[in-house]
Formats: sequence, C-alpha cells, structure tokens
Amino acid sequence: MRVAILAHETFPERAKTAVGVLRYGDHDVRAVLDRSLAGDRVSDHVPDVQDAPIVESIDDVGDIDALLVGIAPIGGGFEASWRPDVRGALERSCDVIAGLHYFLADDEEFARLADEHGAELRDLRRPPEDLTVAEGRAAEVDAEVVLTVGTDCSTGKMTTTFELAAAARDRGVDAGVVPTGQTGIAIADYGIAVDGVVADFAAGAVERMVRERAEEYDVLFVEGQGALAHPAYSGVTASILHGAMPDSLVLCHVAGREAVHGYEHVPLPSPDEYVGLYESVADPVAPADVVAGALNTRSIDDEAAARAAVDTYADALDTPATDPVRVGVEPILDAVLDG
Amino acid sequence: MRVAILAHETFPERAKTAVGVLRYGDHDVRAVLDRSLAGDRVSDHVPDVQDAPIVESIDDVGDIDALLVGIAPIGGGFEASWRPDVRGALERSCDVIAGLHYFLADDEEFARLADEHGAELRDLRRPPEDLTVAEGRAAEVDAEVVLTVGTDCSTGKMTTTFELAAAARDRGVDAGVVPTGQTGIAIADYGIAVDGVVADFAAGAVERMVRERAEEYDVLFVEGQGALAHPAYSGVTASILHGAMPDSLVLCHVAGREAVHGYEHVPLPSPDEYVGLYESVADPVAPADVVAGALNTRSIDDEAAARAAVDTYADALDTPATDPVRVGVEPILDAVLDG
Repeated sequence: MRVAILAHETFPERAKTAVGVLRYGDHDVRAVLDRSLAGDRVSDHVPDVQDAPIVESIDDVGDIDALLVGIAPIGGGFEASWRPDVRGALERSCDVIAGLHYFLADDEEFARLADEHGAELRDLRRPPEDLTVAEGRAAEVDAEVVLTVGTDCSTGKMTTTFELAAAARDRGVDAGVVPTGQTGIAIADYGIAVDGVVADFAAGAVERMVRERAEEYDVLFVEGQGALAHPAYSGVTASILHGAMPDSLVLCHVAGREAVHGYEHVPLPSPDEYVGLYESVADPVAPADVVAGALNTRSIDDEAAARAAVDTYADALDTPATDPVRVGVEPILDAVLDG
Repeated sequence: MRVAILAHETFPERAKTAVGVLRYGDHDVRAVLDRSLAGDRVSDHVPDVQDAPIVESIDDVGDIDALLVGIAPIGGGFEASWRPDVRGALERSCDVIAGLHYFLADDEEFARLADEHGAELRDLRRPPEDLTVAEGRAAEVDAEVVLTVGTDCSTGKMTTTFELAAAARDRGVDAGVVPTGQTGIAIADYGIAVDGVVADFAAGAVERMVRERAEEYDVLFVEGQGALAHPAYSGVTASILHGAMPDSLVLCHVAGREAVHGYEHVPLPSPDEYVGLYESVADPVAPADVVAGALNTRSIDDEAAARAAVDTYADALDTPATDPVRVGVEPILDAVLDG
C-alpha cells in the first residue's frame, strides 16, 4: 500500500503513529506531510527507518493509495488545518485512514467527497458493531501468546511488541501482532482500539482478535495497554490480560519512573511487586509468568549507566531484560519464545 | 414518584429490577403489570416488600408519573408485546424508564409520542456524553466509601449494597448508594451503568459518581460489578475498584459456587485467595481491606447448615460475615462502619 502520512508541525517527536508506521509498517511511504519541515527528508530527523521526502501538502505527493493521519493529538480531535489535505486526497480517490476520537466518516464534507470519488474513510478507533462478551476461550488457541504489560502507560509496550515480532520473524518464526491501540492498528492494518470499546466487551474484543490471528500465526505478540495499578486505565489492562489469556508476559518499564505519569500522587509499585501483581491476577483465569523485561532507558545519557539500569531491572524481575530500542530484543528473545 | 412496573410473564423470579425497586426504592408503586398474574397482588408472591396490585395492562393503572420497565432480559432487547403499554403510558404523558440495551429514545414511534405528549424517555443504560478519564482523586472525598466486591457475577453485591445502606440509615448514619448497574440505578434514580461505558472512561464514571454523592452523604456504599478473576468482566471490576478508591471492601460470594457462572471451565479462587487478590490490586492505587463477607446461602435449605456455611466463610475471610437476605446485615454493620 502506497501511503502519504500527515504529520504537520509534529514530525517526528509528536507524531508517534507516523514514526511507528515508518519503522514497523510494511507500507510504501511515499511522503510525509509536515509543512514546518518541507524540503527535508525523514532520514534527516529519524535515521533508522524507511526514508521518504517531507512535503508541504497533498499536492506535492505522487500516486498513492491512502493518506494516513499520523498524529494522535491529546483529545483526539481533528484540526482544521488538516482539512485541505484530507479533501485533496479524497478528490484523488485516495482512502483516508485515521485513529482519531473524531471519526472522519461522521464528517459531512468528507463523507460526501468519499462517496463522490469512491474513496474509503477508515476510522481505526471505531469499534466493530458486532462485539460480544468474552467466552474465556482464548487459551485454547494453538498459537503461543505473549502479552506485553507495563508498570504505567507509555512504557514501550507497542515498541516491544513490534520489535519482538520482527526479531522472531528474523529467526524464521511465524510471528504475528495483535494490536490494541491506534498506532499499532495503523502499523499492522488490523486491530481494535480496546480503550474505545464498551467496558462489557473489552475482553471479548481481545479474545476475538487472538482467535482470528491464531489461525494465521504460530506465535502472537499482543500489545498491552495501560497498567494494572493505573488509576484510570486498569480496566483496559485487566480486559486485555483476561481476554488474551497469554502464555507469558513481558513487563515494560521506564527507568527511573516512580509515580504514575500524569498522576504524580500515585506512586508506582516496584517492578518486582508488579510481577507479583500481574501473575496473581492472571493466575485464576489463565496462568502466565513474567518471562522477560523491557526497560526504556531514554532518560539515561551514559551508555554504561543505561546498561547497568537494565541489569538492575533484570535482577529485580529475576528474568532476562533489555532496552528494546537501545540494545534490541535479542537478549530476551530466547526467554520469550521458550516462555 | 408514582410508578407502575412492567414485568410481563416474569414476576417475580425473572424481574430483578421490579423486585429491587419494590424492596429498596422509595417509589410509590401503584401497580405491577404482569398479564400472567393479573388479579393477584405483589404480596401473594413476595411477602416482604411494598405491596401493589398486579394488573393486565397500562389501561388498568390509575394516575402515575412513570412506567418503569422492570425486566432486564438477556441481550437487553425490547419485546414487541411490551409496546402497547409503553405507548399507552406515553399517550398519558407519563415518562417511561428502562435499563435495556435497546434505547427507547432511539425508537421512532416512542420518540414521536414522547415529544407529542411532553413525556420523557429515560434510558438508564445510556452513559452521559461528557465522561472523562479518571483523575485518581476519589480518595480525597470526605465521605467514607465502602465497595461491595464479588467472587463472581450475581453474588449479591447489589442486595448487600442496599441492605447495608438501609441498615446504616436505621442507625442514624447519613448513608447513600452509588449504583453502577441498571437495577441499582432504577432503585436509586441515580447512577451510571459502568459496563456500558467506553473502557477508557469506566473508572472516570465511578470517580465522578463518588465525588458527586460524597457531597451529600457521610458514608457511601458503592455497588460493585463482576469479579477481578472473571474472564469477561474483570475490566469493569478493576475500573470500579480504582475509580471509587474505597476505604474498605465487602466480599460477596455464593455458597458452594466453585466455578465462574457460565464459564464452568474457569475455577473460582477460594474466598481467602480472593481477599488477597482484591487487596493487592487495590493497594498501589488506594489501599482497602476486606472488612466483612456476605454469603448467599439460598441453595442451602437447612437453616443450621446455612448458618454453619456463614461461619466457615467468616473464618476463611477472617472477618465478620452474614447472609444479607437470610440473616440481614446487622452482624457485619459494625465492621463495615468502622472499616
């Protein structure tokens, strides 16, 4: 699929979906739209991903199949300044894909243009209409199921999930991903944003994905969300844990983080306490051990100090650990695949 | 509020909402509509609740303010045979209240009739549109907050919640209820059906209710839902636990139940294991101990055996315990109010 990615004034730091697709997607990215960086190339800003020109607007893009909105702003709104590019894409009969809270298909102008030009508006956060409650049967699938869990939000669960899948495939393992958030869904062109599902059906949505994907792959890496001791999102986390019924868990943590991000009055349990928490909640429904750790050491400049932090984390978990970005997932892949 | 309750062919066993409102609501119930029992009285079937005549249809009911649909069928659909009664109520300018998955306000005929006759259609399961993510601040309220939790669905959490609130009020305590399911909402004429809220906002919905009600009451009894080791509903449970940030927990269990109801392949953790589970998941966000147990002994005919089961349950929990229906909540009220 040939795509352009809209990331005006946010590339790369605040365009998580754009960078995720460039790094992990198998899309053919023909251009990134960022009017503040027009004339640059992706490689000027992010060296280790698929390269592409950065352009001013959709008018500077050649033949593509779809325009992907690569920004997930807080609140999930649609900004008026993106409208000409979406309009231009639809007028060229290109599909438009977005993971916003604001559904493009509910926008009168976009719906009309899509209809007129035979283009599709794909809102990644819109849940399927036929979801049901979980049957508690995901453990019966033939595939091995590995779930990334976290000590908080934004700890690297999505990155760890895709890195593990890529590394497993490099070893010849038939590995697939079960994405549960908008960026993962944009990358894999598959998935359900579990946090947008009615609470009753959240575990059922995950179960459905695990059963579907297990028909196609031998090993599934399920992208976790939130954290079990998060004041706002623990329900999403529990639904994924019990809906996926994983065989093993990989615990993701940010080095030095001691309170829940955005909830500084709520201290984070220590990583080893978190291991106990996840395992004891998993146990009655489908037992799963934490078999590896993923530590985000971005805040540590010194290389030796970062490696020491990973070692300390491995000791706390009593499992192998790594920083999936700085070091890669090779140090934990055996443990994960044997988990 | 003068109401009639629709419970055709289900009263009393399968009309949980009807019986709940008769038992705990402060509605003035003028009639129950059940065409299969027309001519009987409520007291012929349920002795210890508000009495009322049972009638054939809305045409047999005198002046009322609202018709309440007192049935919550599996699937939550609206049955065609109820239509004449709803129509009749609206034509008399009576409001119609329902906790169905099917929203009456989305029904063209009902919406038109309500509009014509100045009546209101109140769908108790429709979430407010302005919900937000939890702030993790419910622990700051002045009220003492007690949450009923369960080892499974349908263990008596709603009954225990309302019985505790009533008993506390009898002692002069300014006690209120925070209902989280359709029957509780119908009884209290307040609340949000948490299982119908988008997963991201589930804890936020509970937090909002606790903060609102804490302005009015000294002690709040929050109605729990599901169970922390339930394959389908654990997300709802976790959201309530962390959204409410209770001071103490009352664990509800059904005597003899050894597997999750409807999920017989998933064994239930023992009550004492469940105490550890709830306390360890509560702890990092807002510590709360299980301070009492409520055991449903309906399946035990022999009175002495039922009392022995309650004693065994109390020993397992290492707290006072009772059967709220058979014995009442007096044996646990001190522990709950001091918790």
